[in-house]
Amino acid sequence: MEVTQVLHMNGGTGETSYANNSLLQQKAIALTEGMREEAISSLYRSMVPRHLAIADLGCSCGPNTLFVISEVIKSVEKLCVELNHKSPEYQFFMNDLPGNDFNSIFKSLDSFKQKLSNEIHAWTGSCFFNGVPGSFYGRIFPSKSLHFVHSSYSLQWLSKVPGGVESNKGNIYMASSSPINVLRAYYEQFQRDFSLFLKCRAEEIVKGGRMVLTILGRRSDDPSSRECCYIWELLAMALNDMFCKGIIKEEQIDSFNIPQYTPSPSEVEMEVKKEGSFSITALEVFEVPWNGCDNWNVFDSELPNVSYDVTKCMRAVAEPLLVSHFGKAIIEDVFGRYQEILIERMAKEKTGFVNISISMIKTT
Amino acid sequence: MEVTQVLHMNGGTGETSYANNSLLQQKAIALTEGMREEAISSLYRSMVPRHLAIADLGCSCGPNTLFVISEVIKSVEKLCVELNHKSPEYQFFMNDLPGNDFNSIFKSLDSFKQKLSNEIHAWTGSCFFNGVPGSFYGRIFPSKSLHFVHSSYSLQWLSKVPGGVESNKGNIYMASSSPINVLRAYYEQFQRDFSLFLKCRAEEIVKGGRMVLTILGRRSDDPSSRECCYIWELLAMALNDMFCKGIIKEEQIDSFNIPQYTPSPSEVEMEVKKEGSFSITALEVFEVPWNGCDNWNVFDSELPNVSYDVTKCMRAVAEPLLVSHFGKAIIEDVFGRYQEILIERMAKEKTGFVNISISMIKTT
Repeated sequence: MEVTQVLHMNGGTGETSYANNSLLQQKAIALTEGMREEAISSLYRSMVPRHLAIADLGCSCGPNTLFVISEVIKSVEKLCVELNHKSPEYQFFMNDLPGNDFNSIFKSLDSFKQKLSNEIHAWTGSCFFNGVPGSFYGRIFPSKSLHFVHSSYSLQWLSKVPGGVESNKGNIYMASSSPINVLRAYYEQFQRDFSLFLKCRAEEIVKGGRMVLTILGRRSDDPSSRECCYIWELLAMALNDMFCKGIIKEEQIDSFNIPQYTPSPSEVEMEVKKEGSFSITALEVFEVPWNGCDNWNVFDSELPNVSYDVTKCMRAVAEPLLVSHFGKAIIEDVFGRYQEILIERMAKEKTGFVNISISMIKTT
Repeated sequence: MEVTQVLHMNGGTGETSYANNSLLQQKAIALTEGMREEAISSLYRSMVPRHLAIADLGCSCGPNTLFVISEVIKSVEKLCVELNHKSPEYQFFMNDLPGNDFNSIFKSLDSFKQKLSNEIHAWTGSCFFNGVPGSFYGRIFPSKSLHFVHSSYSLQWLSKVPGGVESNKGNIYMASSSPINVLRAYYEQFQRDFSLFLKCRAEEIVKGGRMVLTILGRRSDDPSSRECCYIWELLAMALNDMFCKGIIKEEQIDSFNIPQYTPSPSEVEMEVKKEGSFSITALEVFEVPWNGCDNWNVFDSELPNVSYDVTKCMRAVAEPLLVSHFGKAIIEDVFGRYQEILIERMAKEKTGFVNISISMIKTT
């Protein structure tokens, strides 16, 4: 599987689209507003740039893509009023893999700009939008061309399924039953990918520039901890059910592994320090319920709806990967079973995603 | 009709796509290679930029979009070898209206870059790609951020159907039977649009930067001259046939006007001089047969094929406009009739498009 060709959120604006099923990711973005606000304000105050180049890496498509952009503009415009400055020219770079539905984003820009002018009183500033297709595990911008880089819910995706995970039988991600060499292979792939990410951004961001990243992760030191692996273990259960019913083959499950790594805070920190171009100004760990809502307590009567939402969220994220490996025909079936499993499990335990948010300044 | 919402070439890579039916536009691009080569070489020699920002405005999608980019890189790389310079970082901005199929372009970039590395010996340079959705009759780039701007077969499109053309009955574009006020309304819209285009680019292009534009136009001073209007007159004939057969209504034809203006060389020159930021270094007028081939002489036996190609080319360009006004149902019928008319007319006369290419340097 060529991850850069296959990995993308479900496009369009339909029932199973990412645009309509990304409440969880929206929640994580909302919870990191303070961190971005601090970073962009301190960046603006220290540099007072006339031209502000901002990149969102792994922007996907849907309401979340443009939410961060509008928030950044509002923060800076507030500062400009406060400091009696003329608005800078904003240039936004929305990056994702080439399979992302950029057409959808682009078609929504006119109404977004209209809404923004209504919301920001007397704003006459200029705002330029660019789509940037390509993997952020490589250079995608000219040297020293960016002031602020943001990425949310993207950096847990690896550039590829690590080599040497053939022995991860019956699993589709790291799990408590995964052999130690599988866990090591996943971690080493994360190290290679994340250090390359930092190296590339270090070349692209100006001195004094800022970067705020939110990564799906874990608190535990154990990479096969339930807090990060359980959601995929349940999907593996659905697939294994289908193997038992003779719908898919065992080899198909054994050869399927999710190209993801959910790091611990210290694993993230360690790579940043090793790379050496960025200094960490803040690091936060927080949890969001699987369904992306505020409420951790789900009544039994709500479970079918809540598990349906979680299923749709996971489907919007994982469908293209599953289709590329198992084919289109099994999709309804696998997510039907997945939902049944989710209803049962979510009734019994508190289920949430752990998020790591980190704010950095480019020091060299 | 909101032109910025409706106007786009047929997307995708299917039978009726622009990508598969843009031989004519390709031909025009090939014929202006020398002009671009001169502009980009002289730009590079005079500025020796480490970072080269290049925009293609109205890039559409398909092979033509990337052809100019590969040509520009090859020209500069040849110069770098000759002058023993390190390659600059290239940043390409591919602009079109938001309805353009950017997803198709983005998906083709990996193989394009692969091909390019194979073609340019020992090339290790960096090349960054951006999609820029928006009308070029407005600012789409930050101030003084571009070195080279290219646009081919796009600037004949107006930002909107001019007001005051209600009396253009039975026609869908300027025609010999169009009232004088219709011709004037079209020309004034061109003046407003083209001068705004120049003003915006003047703000975006660095001093000493270059711009090469190819515009579908005419030689004659008469804006309703056959050399630019005939191709649309024949489409109007097809629509009028359908009115006679009761398939569409007269009012539908009367209220449909193509948002295009095919200027004369002096009309183009005049706007450039009026705006004042650019100095013209070259202006060429050349003709390309309707079918985009080298050969002006078409044998009778080839006519069905040739007219089929011309029909498909015009369909790839005009289908979204027609669909938005007349609906999808009539499309096969109208282009079937159009082809019949083309067979008959192309047998009798030499039919070609007049192109105006102009090269400019930003002097202020």
